[in-house]
Amino acid sequence: MERAVVAGVGMTRFGKHLDTGLKALGREAVLAALADAGIDKSALQAAFVGNAMAGLITGQECIRGQVVLRSAGIGAIPVVNVENACASASTALHQACAMVAAGVYDTVLALGVEKLYHPDKKRSFAAIGSAVDTEEIAKIMEALEQSAATQGATQAKSGAGQKRSMFMDFYAAAARRHMERYGTTARQFAAVAAKNAYHGSLNPHAQFQQALTVDEVLAAPMIAEPLTRPMCSPIGDGAAAAVIVSPSKARELGVPQPVTVDACILRSGWDHELDDEGTVELCVREAYEKAGIGPEDLDVIEAHDASAPAELMYYEEFGLCKPGEGGALIDSGATKIGGRIPVNPSGGLLRKGHPVGATGLAQITELVQQLRGQCGRRQVEGARVGMAQNGGGNIGTDAAAMCVTIVRV
Amino acid sequence: MERAVVAGVGMTRFGKHLDTGLKALGREAVLAALADAGIDKSALQAAFVGNAMAGLITGQECIRGQVVLRSAGIGAIPVVNVENACASASTALHQACAMVAAGVYDTVLALGVEKLYHPDKKRSFAAIGSAVDTEEIAKIMEALEQSAATQGATQAKSGAGQKRSMFMDFYAAAARRHMERYGTTARQFAAVAAKNAYHGSLNPHAQFQQALTVDEVLAAPMIAEPLTRPMCSPIGDGAAAAVIVSPSKARELGVPQPVTVDACILRSGWDHELDDEGTVELCVREAYEKAGIGPEDLDVIEAHDASAPAELMYYEEFGLCKPGEGGALIDSGATKIGGRIPVNPSGGLLRKGHPVGATGLAQITELVQQLRGQCGRRQVEGARVGMAQNGGGNIGTDAAAMCVTIVRV
Repeated sequence: MERAVVAGVGMTRFGKHLDTGLKALGREAVLAALADAGIDKSALQAAFVGNAMAGLITGQECIRGQVVLRSAGIGAIPVVNVENACASASTALHQACAMVAAGVYDTVLALGVEKLYHPDKKRSFAAIGSAVDTEEIAKIMEALEQSAATQGATQAKSGAGQKRSMFMDFYAAAARRHMERYGTTARQFAAVAAKNAYHGSLNPHAQFQQALTVDEVLAAPMIAEPLTRPMCSPIGDGAAAAVIVSPSKARELGVPQPVTVDACILRSGWDHELDDEGTVELCVREAYEKAGIGPEDLDVIEAHDASAPAELMYYEEFGLCKPGEGGALIDSGATKIGGRIPVNPSGGLLRKGHPVGATGLAQITELVQQLRGQCGRRQVEGARVGMAQNGGGNIGTDAAAMCVTIVRV
Repeated sequence: MERAVVAGVGMTRFGKHLDTGLKALGREAVLAALADAGIDKSALQAAFVGNAMAGLITGQECIRGQVVLRSAGIGAIPVVNVENACASASTALHQACAMVAAGVYDTVLALGVEKLYHPDKKRSFAAIGSAVDTEEIAKIMEALEQSAATQGATQAKSGAGQKRSMFMDFYAAAARRHMERYGTTARQFAAVAAKNAYHGSLNPHAQFQQALTVDEVLAAPMIAEPLTRPMCSPIGDGAAAAVIVSPSKARELGVPQPVTVDACILRSGWDHELDDEGTVELCVREAYEKAGIGPEDLDVIEAHDASAPAELMYYEEFGLCKPGEGGALIDSGATKIGGRIPVNPSGGLLRKGHPVGATGLAQITELVQQLRGQCGRRQVEGARVGMAQNGGGNIGTDAAAMCVTIVRV
């Protein structure tokens, strides 16, 4: 089986786009990716379109991809609408890469697009709450509240219909377990947020471009202990796209800096105990095997920092350090631009933003531009191999969908 | 590239299942398909899950496949949630077949599941209304009302929030054009509904099992002229599944009557003029080419008779007769069980039912059982080659998604 090649990428700036609809956002990213690839839309043989929540936010369900692509003058080709919560765009990428690598198509579009802002913010949070088994919400919330009470943690009531995402309660509970088990501190989690704020300050596509000190992060309003607001990814709108081609098509097109997809592993979650291999470790292990590399070979990573503690824990799951040493790794500066293995040079979900169904392809956009040396002030010097990790939803005791992608120039 | 093989199929009875949720419906179909294939769920390498409207009906969005499959004890594998309105299940099948044929996997599950009934029926119809460009609903409704007024047709006000599906207005307008152009009669459309009612009366899985005469169809309440109620597919709940394997895996499993997928063509719609090739003709032509057959080689067809006139018009688009001769074909009895080319022996969407995201795989379930000779009183004798046609949504002047599949035993 061949490997797929990323011929072009494009994205909108992420943020609050109350006056811009799904179509305009998607169109901007698609046309940018086509221009970047140097191909005409008529060359596309199929499109995979990720979106998680338009049905619940704008009322557009069922044929979201066709509606968005038609506004960019694209139709008639097979359009597959895919959905995997916050991993919807990675799922579109995974399908596109698998089809191209297997020889089904040689030129395919992967698009992720999301409108998450709604004048009524509760609607946005309720939509995010649909990324779990909705019949179990009451049970899930009870367990989270019990965990917070047991550990004396401060948190506002959350859940469907409330003013913040229940996912922050998941992350807060995991963060408290990490603190108890390994002595990790809230200051170390805050350091992740401050690092990503610095990175975001260098990224013109980032939703937030203001730098923050660790003390500023710690002093911000508490969302769910130990998470203050800048430790939680924001609500956002946006789109990101990639044109995926076969190696022979890349040669035919004369793509100047072809980026090869060495692995794109998709898995669903299940129930697992604390010491079992969860979806992150599983996907990362399979991706390393498929790409024939180890964590020491990575030059740059885009990780799913929906919360700051998540990034710190992923360091361990990626094999960048041993279990329990994530706190020491952030303290060492290794994951900052200029360090040994920069993580989230884009600013990550925390600062670049997190329009859920677009995030996975925004990570790929950042990695491709890093590997091509196009990132200006946030460039990771000499980056040749990058990894993206994108998770979505919750099922049992794990993420519902997880995708890990390794790209190389 | 190899051809994919259907190793097993299963479905629930379609109908009004107010007390049965998505999970129980999906689980029943999945377990039936696994049992039919004679394989354990642990053999599945990936799952493609089609659902169109759970987000708008039950509130379960984002990770519908994981939630349903977990209830059947299936997880950890890649799960891709796909959506293409009424063609969602075919899209799942298309992805499963493409992946298996290309050698990415050798054992894959395709599932379609839908809960469309809601105590508030307006909610069901509003959800169906999301299968168009929702920003254009006002424009679409105005054009439909104008068309009805011009032709002096009787119809109740429809659209989002109303008590019936706007799609019946699309079908009614197309039916009136066919009547004007070719002299087709309402009685001929009614004959399609009566034929499918007879077929449904022989199908224990059908939502409606009562036979109807042509006069009874014509005397039923008018929905949108010339469509009376039995000429319109009903609201329904249900699930259908198929286990797709590679030819070598089929041999390894010793599948007794392997059904080969000779073609599974997916396309999206666009704008086309009345005499242009629309998505149905395009998909059918490509499917015949890929399978190396013509319409004369088909023994049995499951068509997307969301309305009775649609089936009659598809006769022409499938090449079963010349343009304008659909009325004569239904009059001849050729498309009834026992005729030259039986269409919708299951009862079709009109009588077997139409839980939108499940329909495409229910068609495949019927064809597989027909080709194996398992259909009892509704068996099409000696059927060796079957075709399914499944459309979804509306974009421009065409269906948003169309899938045509040819299977052979």
